[in-house]
Amino acid sequence: MTLDELLKDRSEEAKSTYLSHISIDCVVFGFDNGTIKVLLVRMKGKRHWMLPGGFVENHEDIDDAAIRILTARTGADKVYLQQFATFGKKDRSQAFFKQSPALWHAQRFISIGYFAMVDFNQVIPVADDISDKCEWLPLQELPALAMDHSTILSKALKTLQTQVNYQPIGLNLLPQEFTLPELQKLYESILGRTLNRGNFYRKIMALDILEKLDEPRKGGAHKAPNLYSFNVKKYNEAFENGIYDRW
Amino acid sequence: MTLDELLKDRSEEAKSTYLSHISIDCVVFGFDNGTIKVLLVRMKGKRHWMLPGGFVENHEDIDDAAIRILTARTGADKVYLQQFATFGKKDRSQAFFKQSPALWHAQRFISIGYFAMVDFNQVIPVADDISDKCEWLPLQELPALAMDHSTILSKALKTLQTQVNYQPIGLNLLPQEFTLPELQKLYESILGRTLNRGNFYRKIMALDILEKLDEPRKGGAHKAPNLYSFNVKKYNEAFENGIYDRW
Repeated sequence: MTLDELLKDRSEEAKSTYLSHISIDCVVFGFDNGTIKVLLVRMKGKRHWMLPGGFVENHEDIDDAAIRILTARTGADKVYLQQFATFGKKDRSQAFFKQSPALWHAQRFISIGYFAMVDFNQVIPVADDISDKCEWLPLQELPALAMDHSTILSKALKTLQTQVNYQPIGLNLLPQEFTLPELQKLYESILGRTLNRGNFYRKIMALDILEKLDEPRKGGAHKAPNLYSFNVKKYNEAFENGIYDRW
Repeated sequence: MTLDELLKDRSEEAKSTYLSHISIDCVVFGFDNGTIKVLLVRMKGKRHWMLPGGFVENHEDIDDAAIRILTARTGADKVYLQQFATFGKKDRSQAFFKQSPALWHAQRFISIGYFAMVDFNQVIPVADDISDKCEWLPLQELPALAMDHSTILSKALKTLQTQVNYQPIGLNLLPQEFTLPELQKLYESILGRTLNRGNFYRKIMALDILEKLDEPRKGGAHKAPNLYSFNVKKYNEAFENGIYDRW
């Protein structure tokens, strides 16, 4: 079946299950091999990648809807999810279904954006039955996305870039144990620029959210690098209270 | 006519004019007499105050809807408006119209929150014909609001409190000319605590967004205080680029 046939089959059920005019789009960030990646899907027969998304059930909180949508794509049941903006230009999604305007899915949608940070290694991307692909793509090499999804993604990234100035980051993106160069790479990948190593170490240590492990990483020809993990209690306190008070 | 009768009269028109399930609520901040105030309305026959709000027309961008709604209440045509969060708990608005569930207005609404900062002296609060009051109430002495509007207001204030750490504030809240103690009062009123005068002056001057006027304020028995205004170009650059880069 084509995408339109599949969606036509579901239009009636969608109409009775979901609120009209409201959708959710998820920007899922993962960190792999020193670079930020984003989870994207491609619907059957469509040329452009898009953000994984879905709709809000009639009697469902929007935050619960976002978790449900994300879990279906990633298999991950505990992810950090944060609403960051809502997108409602009048023509943001109409063109996508212009050849089948009678579909429930072709109505005007205002989309609530959530971003998620997940441990790349814990996620198995799942393509649903209206998509032929669900994959991680590197943030720095993304193609143009469908609808206004490039705008949504940019806003999520900008939010994250601002947020690292006043909240710690990494607990949900890094594996349990990591080296300081790996943590620096994470910051550099989010900020899109290199950081001075000495300054970064000094500043990250000043946050007092890291614990140095007794055993360095094993294997490799060079001197074994020290391993760290987050002190979750201190990390969460810093996340809640902010790491910086200008005034 | 009672509120329910008024709304019943409009349910048909509302149904054909506005998107279902989506509303907008505006948190309007003003600064008067050294304290932050919030613009609130009270619908006819209702006991609780609420945020001014409205709906999105079928072919209207959500940002345009927010401007339209705000202009109708304040008469101000150039206000700083910023979307800050969307509120969608399943039961957030049902109770409000529980005695008239057939009204279009009694359906489930997911509400997009915008906050606005306005020059208190430029605004004339306007009660529409379904409200009996539209007034400025001081932030520190607010009563419990209708629906989840206290939650929406708290989130707006928290967003603002975070934002003053990385963006300048005041251009839209203060009159054209102001003294440094007035600017400090604005920050204190937003942050909810007093600030050390010397530190504040040093930090605010370091932003390089102020211009000292040649003439001090006239009148009064004491030494005339120096007047300042914002250098709008520098203010906007600082607003856009951020006033702080931690990394």
